[in-house]
Amino acid sequence: MINILLCGSNGKMGNAVRRVAQNDDFINIAAGYDINNSGCEFPVYDNLSKITEKIDCIIDFSHPSLTDSILDFAKANKIPAVICTTGLSKDQISKIDFYSKEIPIFFSANMSIGVNLIIDLVQKAAKVLESNFDIEIIEKHHNQKLDAPSGTALAIADAIADTVSYNAKYTFDRHAVRQKRDKAEIGIHAVRGGNIVGEHSVIFAGCDEVIELKHSATSKEVFAVGAVRAAIFMKDKPAGLYSMSDLVKEF
Amino acid sequence: MINILLCGSNGKMGNAVRRVAQNDDFINIAAGYDINNSGCEFPVYDNLSKITEKIDCIIDFSHPSLTDSILDFAKANKIPAVICTTGLSKDQISKIDFYSKEIPIFFSANMSIGVNLIIDLVQKAAKVLESNFDIEIIEKHHNQKLDAPSGTALAIADAIADTVSYNAKYTFDRHAVRQKRDKAEIGIHAVRGGNIVGEHSVIFAGCDEVIELKHSATSKEVFAVGAVRAAIFMKDKPAGLYSMSDLVKEF
Amino acid sequence: MINILLCGSNGKMGNAVRRVAQNDDFINIAAGYDINNSGCEFPVYDNLSKITEKIDCIIDFSHPSLTDSILDFAKANKIPAVICTTGLSKDQISKIDFYSKEIPIFFSANMSIGVNLIIDLVQKAAKVLESNFDIEIIEKHHNQKLDAPSGTALAIADAIADTVSYNAKYTFDRHAVRQKRDKAEIGIHAVRGGNIVGEHSVIFAGCDEVIELKHSATSKEVFAVGAVRAAIFMKDKPAGLYSMSDLVKEF
Amino acid sequence: MINILLCGSNGKMGNAVRRVAQNDDFINIAAGYDINNSGCEFPVYDNLSKITEKIDCIIDFSHPSLTDSILDFAKANKIPAVICTTGLSKDQISKIDFYSKEIPIFFSANMSIGVNLIIDLVQKAAKVLESNFDIEIIEKHHNQKLDAPSGTALAIADAIADTVSYNAKYTFDRHAVRQKRDKAEIGIHAVRGGNIVGEHSVIFAGCDEVIELKHSATSKEVFAVGAVRAAIFMKDKPAGLYSMSDLVKEF
Repeated sequence: MINILLCGSNGKMGNAVRRVAQNDDFINIAAGYDINNSGCEFPVYDNLSKITEKIDCIIDFSHPSLTDSILDFAKANKIPAVICTTGLSKDQISKIDFYSKEIPIFFSANMSIGVNLIIDLVQKAAKVLESNFDIEIIEKHHNQKLDAPSGTALAIADAIADTVSYNAKYTFDRHAVRQKRDKAEIGIHAVRGGNIVGEHSVIFAGCDEVIELKHSATSKEVFAVGAVRAAIFMKDKPAGLYSMSDLVKEF
Repeated sequence: MINILLCGSNGKMGNAVRRVAQNDDFINIAAGYDINNSGCEFPVYDNLSKITEKIDCIIDFSHPSLTDSILDFAKANKIPAVICTTGLSKDQISKIDFYSKEIPIFFSANMSIGVNLIIDLVQKAAKVLESNFDIEIIEKHHNQKLDAPSGTALAIADAIADTVSYNAKYTFDRHAVRQKRDKAEIGIHAVRGGNIVGEHSVIFAGCDEVIELKHSATSKEVFAVGAVRAAIFMKDKPAGLYSMSDLVKEF
Repeated sequence: MINILLCGSNGKMGNAVRRVAQNDDFINIAAGYDINNSGCEFPVYDNLSKITEKIDCIIDFSHPSLTDSILDFAKANKIPAVICTTGLSKDQISKIDFYSKEIPIFFSANMSIGVNLIIDLVQKAAKVLESNFDIEIIEKHHNQKLDAPSGTALAIADAIADTVSYNAKYTFDRHAVRQKRDKAEIGIHAVRGGNIVGEHSVIFAGCDEVIELKHSATSKEVFAVGAVRAAIFMKDKPAGLYSMSDLVKEF
Repeated sequence: MINILLCGSNGKMGNAVRRVAQNDDFINIAAGYDINNSGCEFPVYDNLSKITEKIDCIIDFSHPSLTDSILDFAKANKIPAVICTTGLSKDQISKIDFYSKEIPIFFSANMSIGVNLIIDLVQKAAKVLESNFDIEIIEKHHNQKLDAPSGTALAIADAIADTVSYNAKYTFDRHAVRQKRDKAEIGIHAVRGGNIVGEHSVIFAGCDEVIELKHSATSKEVFAVGAVRAAIFMKDKPAGLYSMSDLVKEF
């Protein structure tokens, strides 16, 4: 059983971690750290110095303003930390890097285990299929999203480009030109509509054969599953910086 | 039982019509018209004047060079004709239009009953959903295709634009701009890869709800099914010009 | 502008209706009816007799224990009502039927406009395609669902069976027998996993051609969209009983 | 450049191999072995003893009646062989096994590189996801297929069962029982319709997250691509028995 200190225990993501932990045999939330402390099945503290429970791992879904003190607490007490708070400054990211020389820290651009698994599988598929198959990416998101394609779609494309032997070139629009597809193209298509949370599909199209690897998320609570998995992954790890990609590759 | 004269009976599409007819209780191929006349289960003539069988309907999958004489034969004998030959000249299309004052002629830009049904269903869905849903089209074709998006994708988009109350604008590329989706956009995405024959998907994305209407074809033989359905549809029709859209709307 | 009395205005579905109404130009929530009355942008009453606002239509997402008084209020004041509360007794459903002789009442087994549209489109497709295509249904739901297949999947199958000229027979399992598919089969497949809210896909498979009509819902809030659409639909309707199917067919 | 002896060079699969080879920079068909020898761009012999070309690898898509002599020819001349002929007897399979002590032989239950890749990816995904995701398989085939589920679907399910830590149990029908999904179930659903060549989809459904890995084939010519890949894979391999799974795992 891994005893967790959950930072931001009463926030939206903290509540999601609580739900995941309740269904997980390996995880026990021993304490929470939050200003609001009502309704939790474990003690919640508004100050890290008050914590007396034995902690095996920290999961942080709090706020950038608290991350420095949480990192300091982790280093001082030699506790592994899974940092899931978003919007960190460059200085904070440097601090994570620096502290990871002394304690194990898990920090990942995307905490979804599914997205990271898809990236891993896509790389494997690209290696096997590159000589006979064309690769295209379709992503779907809600109609309020400003950027296109999504950061995850670009991360997938970059992972493919790193893998294949040719110089991949990203194609975002084909309507303006009359020409055959170049073998080196990776078409990236950004569908926008409704309140779709996020869907990424990678298509490998060959001769009379198509392979499709697809990930759909219906809420950001998938990051809570990822955080719990990360905490389990961190057990007995030496000091160092770890990511969801490392977790996926361990299998 | 409808007795068919199959023009181009020994060509690729003619053979496809033969296969479809063998599994259809309402269709009998009474005679063929082709230069090559081997291996058919019905008499094949190399000259229309030699035909003595009673013919209820002509299906033409021959060659533009033969279409004029076939149209003349149809008009002279008051026989309905389903013209599926592609690559006709403007003059030939005018002739079809002109002759259709005297005999029933079926002529359609796309002979696939599936594609035409999808267009019909998409129009219905667009009417019902337009106020709450965003509409996007994804088409997939082989890597040798020059044009993008496909003619069928544009036909679907045009059918939507004709239906909705707003002025639809087609969007082919979102990567260059950082902005929210405009309600009036119809995103059209052209995926290219392998030897995919043709796939069209229309997505209606609303609040927590997505509807998708999708058509996939794996060979051009779907046009043979359409031609046989057209011949049955033409039974007892008065003179006039008919299309696959009319056939679909009759249901 | 249609003025709504929202019954159950502070419940989960009531809140969903409020969100939908805020983005709808035709709907104004004039008053709410709920025990809890905090945080609404309109007056909320704990007793129907206190309501003084002009009401054009009632949307009821409250509780079966309140439905009788809401129906009485609607009849007494000649106000159309959209009854979305679930778990009504047989007596209450009879009362809805009886009162609908005097006022227009909207009551539907499934308030999702998407599901009802899919049923309508599937019937149209079945009519056009039945002679050449096989029909199969795949539904996906969460791993806690007791019944299989889903009520909606059966409703879709029944709608197909009502439409086709053959005697459809439902097939739930093929693994036990070695035989070709009978033309009259409708395969119904119940996929269970994770916390999938609900997905229904109808496949029409023909010769080298497949058509798929698919609906996915990611929350029960789709019923709020349906309720608002129903309220707009009810404007100027005569007394009678209306359903989501009627709404869809009006287009 | 790898010089191939193509056995069954004028059959359907032989022709498919020729098409694939023409687009492949690493493969040269140096000679063919067939009774019918017309229309090939390389010499075709009706007797193996007549072959004088230097052969690096044999691809056999001929007939079980020829496989023994082809295996003898391969062993006598120390040439690697890719045996793709189906319908071999138990004795012939034993012979392949026995000869593979002396020469490298490639022999695989399924020659599709796509299907074998999917099996490999599914195993990886099952390892990573098994604790939080439910696994289901949907396969689609034509309406003439006698067995259900397909052999490939069962091979995928077996690969999952070999991978996960629980005792997987296959579920083919849920309609008869009212109960929640057991964690150890693998649902296997056999869709039948039209002339679908073959589609296999594996779904991993978790909390607010679904991953889908899907393979579609539109003709048996995918086996030709697999055979050519196998011939390239066999270059410089020591004696032994190799399969498509080995090829995929090499990446």
